[in-house]
Amino acid sequence: MDTISCNIPINAEFTVPSRVSRKINPENTIVNVSGVEFGGPGVVIIAGPCAVESEEQLFETGRAVKKSGARILRGGAFKPRSSPYSFQGLGEEGLKLLGEIRKETGMPVVTEVMDTRQIELVSGYADMVQIGSRNMHNYPLLKEAGMCGKPVLLKRGMMATIEEFLLAAEYILHHGNDQVILCERGIRTFETSTRNTLDLSAVPMLKHLSHLPVIVDPSHGTGLRWMVPFMAKAAVAAGADGLIIEVHYNPEKALCDGHQSLSLDEFAGLMTDLDKIALAIGR
Amino acid sequence: MDTISCNIPINAEFTVPSRVSRKINPENTIVNVSGVEFGGPGVVIIAGPCAVESEEQLFETGRAVKKSGARILRGGAFKPRSSPYSFQGLGEEGLKLLGEIRKETGMPVVTEVMDTRQIELVSGYADMVQIGSRNMHNYPLLKEAGMCGKPVLLKRGMMATIEEFLLAAEYILHHGNDQVILCERGIRTFETSTRNTLDLSAVPMLKHLSHLPVIVDPSHGTGLRWMVPFMAKAAVAAGADGLIIEVHYNPEKALCDGHQSLSLDEFAGLMTDLDKIALAIGR
Amino acid sequence: MDTISCNIPINAEFTVPSRVSRKINPENTIVNVSGVEFGGPGVVIIAGPCAVESEEQLFETGRAVKKSGARILRGGAFKPRSSPYSFQGLGEEGLKLLGEIRKETGMPVVTEVMDTRQIELVSGYADMVQIGSRNMHNYPLLKEAGMCGKPVLLKRGMMATIEEFLLAAEYILHHGNDQVILCERGIRTFETSTRNTLDLSAVPMLKHLSHLPVIVDPSHGTGLRWMVPFMAKAAVAAGADGLIIEVHYNPEKALCDGHQSLSLDEFAGLMTDLDKIALAIGR
Amino acid sequence: MDTISCNIPINAEFTVPSRVSRKINPENTIVNVSGVEFGGPGVVIIAGPCAVESEEQLFETGRAVKKSGARILRGGAFKPRSSPYSFQGLGEEGLKLLGEIRKETGMPVVTEVMDTRQIELVSGYADMVQIGSRNMHNYPLLKEAGMCGKPVLLKRGMMATIEEFLLAAEYILHHGNDQVILCERGIRTFETSTRNTLDLSAVPMLKHLSHLPVIVDPSHGTGLRWMVPFMAKAAVAAGADGLIIEVHYNPEKALCDGHQSLSLDEFAGLMTDLDKIALAIGR
Repeated sequence: MDTISCNIPINAEFTVPSRVSRKINPENTIVNVSGVEFGGPGVVIIAGPCAVESEEQLFETGRAVKKSGARILRGGAFKPRSSPYSFQGLGEEGLKLLGEIRKETGMPVVTEVMDTRQIELVSGYADMVQIGSRNMHNYPLLKEAGMCGKPVLLKRGMMATIEEFLLAAEYILHHGNDQVILCERGIRTFETSTRNTLDLSAVPMLKHLSHLPVIVDPSHGTGLRWMVPFMAKAAVAAGADGLIIEVHYNPEKALCDGHQSLSLDEFAGLMTDLDKIALAIGR
Repeated sequence: MDTISCNIPINAEFTVPSRVSRKINPENTIVNVSGVEFGGPGVVIIAGPCAVESEEQLFETGRAVKKSGARILRGGAFKPRSSPYSFQGLGEEGLKLLGEIRKETGMPVVTEVMDTRQIELVSGYADMVQIGSRNMHNYPLLKEAGMCGKPVLLKRGMMATIEEFLLAAEYILHHGNDQVILCERGIRTFETSTRNTLDLSAVPMLKHLSHLPVIVDPSHGTGLRWMVPFMAKAAVAAGADGLIIEVHYNPEKALCDGHQSLSLDEFAGLMTDLDKIALAIGR
Repeated sequence: MDTISCNIPINAEFTVPSRVSRKINPENTIVNVSGVEFGGPGVVIIAGPCAVESEEQLFETGRAVKKSGARILRGGAFKPRSSPYSFQGLGEEGLKLLGEIRKETGMPVVTEVMDTRQIELVSGYADMVQIGSRNMHNYPLLKEAGMCGKPVLLKRGMMATIEEFLLAAEYILHHGNDQVILCERGIRTFETSTRNTLDLSAVPMLKHLSHLPVIVDPSHGTGLRWMVPFMAKAAVAAGADGLIIEVHYNPEKALCDGHQSLSLDEFAGLMTDLDKIALAIGR
Repeated sequence: MDTISCNIPINAEFTVPSRVSRKINPENTIVNVSGVEFGGPGVVIIAGPCAVESEEQLFETGRAVKKSGARILRGGAFKPRSSPYSFQGLGEEGLKLLGEIRKETGMPVVTEVMDTRQIELVSGYADMVQIGSRNMHNYPLLKEAGMCGKPVLLKRGMMATIEEFLLAAEYILHHGNDQVILCERGIRTFETSTRNTLDLSAVPMLKHLSHLPVIVDPSHGTGLRWMVPFMAKAAVAAGADGLIIEVHYNPEKALCDGHQSLSLDEFAGLMTDLDKIALAIGR
């Protein structure tokens, strides 16, 4: 009588688009961001404030994260905010500040682009352009990112399956750019004790299916400052090629995401712990 | 004009029932399973087959996992299966086999109880009784577990919030038993590339809110044998007090969950790697 | 180059266990609850309080819902509550009160069973036994329900797929009882403005796949009294064979679920509106 | 001892931005699309193909849906597709065809805009511009829609909360345009038997919180042609101000979404049924 013998909903016919597939391209792709390599043996840390707020904030934070071992500086100039009444970023003024600290410290910078009309402007200042979670399905923007001439940090949509995430990356590769880093940053589930549910199984799954480097954002993935170090360590143990972490020289005063930003001291402590984990897994 | 300035859905009023709360009882509770301690400095590994299938299967697997360093043996005698046509377990015959290997190896055993009418029987054979994911909301069973006189391994419901999980544990403590281990085993989300989504942020969150030990089940959490080692390492890095891992001496022939069971060799290799991670985080 | 041409995650290989399948049994099963038929041309309304609280509460509410056109009375004697500190129901005393009002009004009664040890007791008083959402995966209870000799109202688990829901019903049929009514009562999603997300597409889907009657619980499905009438009407328009609605003679004073219970007047008004919808769809 | 007495996760502090709020503006906003009114007593049906494919396809379908009672014609010229290898739409050629059938039939047309650079072009042809589910969080596009001078059909993101949906509408109103129709089109959940889970409780909830008209898309909401009529009727019974339905003169040959498109005859039959439901609820 039985027609079902299995209670496992695993997607047996999981499909992967061709250009991002490890089957087509078995070797890891190395993404080179102005000399910093993702996808090789090292674990690369990106750090910095959620949003560029002022020269003082950016420079104090940037110098400190560099000293602690971060290799790339993050900072948003154009901010996607759920409410029209929240701080929307400094815009081009923020990009200029990023250009200045880049000059001073020599650290490459990554910053988000939200609008096809801005991609030339943003690419002119950034060493890597970021496509945020809310724009992972923004196909015109993905196409432009494929033609922008800079590496792309592509964040997983908060509602995107692994399959859709790889298809979004495929848009970028299909338009001529294979310098794409995939970033797991938490998905939306029924659980509300954390801001999102950080899906660390995405790390081995994405590296299994694709040759692209994979990093993790434990700041958005948890939304809780005290939890960031736990999940940062777990992400490295799971095989992540890097992390992107929000750090602020004065989290209590941050205009955006202060509750999930590490202080300079917290970040320095975490970097020491991450070295031990990286060593333990042979990286 | 603005009435919303924040886009963060974090549950600010998160409530925790009293007996499980770390605020009421700041020190870690040590759960003692016939001499094996959870919640102390060490990371304890539970391993064994999904279901007890035969004397040969149980003894070959049990001896091997002990040799590799597992401290407690798992094996199901009563199996909750989605389909009435799937293998339902050996029942009391399975419990007797667990009793025999316990005698030979000296390893404590944990096995699942599904029915209030079976709890006396199961408690008579097991060193620790397991309440599975599908029964986390089975309040009569939780009450009986509170009075059974044995430690309880309580798995998170696949649909349960952290708050509901702690409330389920509260039922057990409220009925007289504080020897409860919490187990994250994956939650149900929209993602289908893995069997469940292993929510590792539950580890630091549960340890933050409660004094009870927390372990992780990467086998059910991923449903994929090759992914188990990655998530096992990540769980330890996130601060888990232990792991429960499905191991089978011949996964291809397993009557249940073979696709997510490690072979004996894979398990031995993983144990070596886990030691390195535990050392890296000072455990 | 393309390996994916389709972005539709519809489960093409959807499987249905055999005894509940409409393919095996194309005709609607009529479930007869002491003379009241589900699965035929009429739309049957079950109403009453969440929990039996007192003789006055039960009798006042029961007489009123009968007068307004309800055919079956609901009321919980054993209540599954997330917290051990919430009202747990009157137990056998509640069953006796249900027996008394049944005698006075002639209305069949439905009440929940949570424990295999109680099923004989509950079946002795009830015209139909209910298995609640939290016990949909409680296989020992499903087996007993298959042998209890009374119709069974099976509620969908709050995170159960349609496939798992049908498999749970299959357990009951497999153990000898085809008098099963399926009840959609809301699933758990990311949305928090309602208590659950009422999945009305489950109504046509379940009726498409199975010959069993399907009813809807708009009270638990929304958790909001003012929203119940909207979703009750929508459920009938979607093809439901009946509804189960929480009604209380004094919702503000209810010991359980008062915020989602209709007053006697609200229920009377709704019944008039439901007649119009039923007529509009030819029932 | 108890610190929790309630197991209801309803968001008591639900916030609504000001311009879309019914508290600020208690009267229904009427959205006027070239003479067709949404938000008044009538239920308005939008119908047409998923994508504009050819003159024949658009004209045959458009004439037929008009004859059956549809008031507005839908048809995509720019299509957001998960895969870069799927049909991406006819682009401006599609807009021109929409302009021609508009001229012949007198029906207003609605079509999607995906890119800030296209909004002027699309607004030049369309009577109403659509912002699709994947762009609900595309803030630059929402701002442009606020300044485009045409009514906007805003679809709910597939994983957007009610709160986020209203905040997205607030962006449009904040930039000067109060002619916004909200469209529920199914959310992403764990359930895979339907393409999305149509959340009909969003209809009464949105109308409760906001003065804007609310319509439902049962085609994307279910992904299944045979299920569309059931959910269309349920949506009207739940209080929707309108529906948007995919219709194709030859669904088997459709380049996009044929599996969820009604044939011309199916649509004509549905329109008759919808009239009866509308009458039953007094519209």
